[in-house]
Amino acid sequence: MKELSFFDGTFIQTNEKKVCIEDRGYQFGDGIYEATHVYNGKCFALERHLKRCRRSMRELRIPITYMDEELRAIHEDIIQKSQIKDGSIYFQITRCTAPRVHYFPEKVIPHLSMTMRQSDIHSDWQETGIHAVLSEDIRWLRCDIKTINLLGNVLAKQHAHEKDAQEAVLFRKETNLITEGSSSNLFIVKDEVLWTHPINNFILKGVTRSILLEECAPQLGLPVVEKAFSPQFALSADEMFVTSTSMEVTPIISLEGTTIGKGTPGKVTQKLLQAYHVLVKKECY
Amino acid sequence: MKELSFFDGTFIQTNEKKVCIEDRGYQFGDGIYEATHVYNGKCFALERHLKRCRRSMRELRIPITYMDEELRAIHEDIIQKSQIKDGSIYFQITRCTAPRVHYFPEKVIPHLSMTMRQSDIHSDWQETGIHAVLSEDIRWLRCDIKTINLLGNVLAKQHAHEKDAQEAVLFRKETNLITEGSSSNLFIVKDEVLWTHPINNFILKGVTRSILLEECAPQLGLPVVEKAFSPQFALSADEMFVTSTSMEVTPIISLEGTTIGKGTPGKVTQKLLQAYHVLVKKECY
Repeated sequence: MKELSFFDGTFIQTNEKKVCIEDRGYQFGDGIYEATHVYNGKCFALERHLKRCRRSMRELRIPITYMDEELRAIHEDIIQKSQIKDGSIYFQITRCTAPRVHYFPEKVIPHLSMTMRQSDIHSDWQETGIHAVLSEDIRWLRCDIKTINLLGNVLAKQHAHEKDAQEAVLFRKETNLITEGSSSNLFIVKDEVLWTHPINNFILKGVTRSILLEECAPQLGLPVVEKAFSPQFALSADEMFVTSTSMEVTPIISLEGTTIGKGTPGKVTQKLLQAYHVLVKKECY
Repeated sequence: MKELSFFDGTFIQTNEKKVCIEDRGYQFGDGIYEATHVYNGKCFALERHLKRCRRSMRELRIPITYMDEELRAIHEDIIQKSQIKDGSIYFQITRCTAPRVHYFPEKVIPHLSMTMRQSDIHSDWQETGIHAVLSEDIRWLRCDIKTINLLGNVLAKQHAHEKDAQEAVLFRKETNLITEGSSSNLFIVKDEVLWTHPINNFILKGVTRSILLEECAPQLGLPVVEKAFSPQFALSADEMFVTSTSMEVTPIISLEGTTIGKGTPGKVTQKLLQAYHVLVKKECY
């Protein structure tokens, strides 16, 4: 199969109509999501994603009506049924379907939808590096929750897309500080130190970000500073890259038309990507 | 009928499953909405709502594939078919259904959904006044677009609901300035001057707000200041009220537990509500 979907307990074709117009996910964006990558028929770092999923639901007070065991089993089922070896799994949980009022309805039965697709990691982007643009971060002040209120991210990514760039680097105008990418976390390497934005309400705690900071960087003996920095500081970096489940570790070779470092993927970036691939191999092969 | 819905050209029951899980409204909140009130079988101020709808779509670059005439006709049809005399009509337009990527897909066919329900204006709230709480405005920086990315509004309204209040008054922490209500525009009357937040990216240009400023206030010879003010300034007001399609002009008699004015609906507020009702009568009866 090329793709397979799931909705509230049943496997479906992706284009089946399963959602009511008064699903709060449809009318308020009242829901959360996760996306994982499947390598060799195995879902990488699923436990970290499930943990974050629970946190997102707790923050929005969506009742957690799925045990981790169930979500894990659905992931295994969709991989098996689709027979996809290498692909991505996206799932979201919305609060419920109810007549439209802003506050939470009394009777809440969350909806779970999921799609698995064949997809390869962009290894070409990893080899050549990508171009990025700067975009004002106009999103809400709870970017730490992985919600489906994603219009700010959508508009930033569209801006990048129109400039033939692959990612938008977001910065807050009030503070002149970079937060993250439109669908990734941003890192720079400067004088052999790894810099990235600290965990707070302005960024999502990316799973790949956590793996890099907790496992890959220590392995390389690479000092890490979790501190926000300006676009100007970023432009003076030796290396720049983004992390995400679908991009893994992907070098940025230009930002807003300015070459970063030597204009080729940096050595530290490449070593981090290699260390990440070792972890993927260990868990999935 | 008590309610009737519509999806992409067909009248449906509200609980029919019509939406695909990859509708971008469901996965990104990538859509816009409008809500109108029907008095005596006639939709009040529909032209203003349709104009704002077009603006929202232009701002998000959702192709406008409906003529105003069509949207007007669908409104008339749903009123006629439902046989509802007094009620509310909600409609939303999402960008399209497409495999999930952040940037806009190439082939875009927007989806239109609509629900009409019996509902009466809360005239009890207008007579007694409502209680409001203060809530930090954590929403994105394009609140001028009426999008379905509404989690910030949802969380604020829920906060009010849990405090037995009927509305949350939002303020930006950075500036200590009130913006608007969680689903309304906020006004105060102080020394016989009407104050409200100016039109910019921090608030929605409410239809009821516009009608008040353009028609009702001039009729009463009431001076208007469109200038942002702090919660402290608001607490010292003689009167406070919110405007929205469903609340019309509704007095606030306490904010965060502090009595506003005399703790009863203010005289200017009542006059503005009367002037508004005259306009409704003129257009719909």
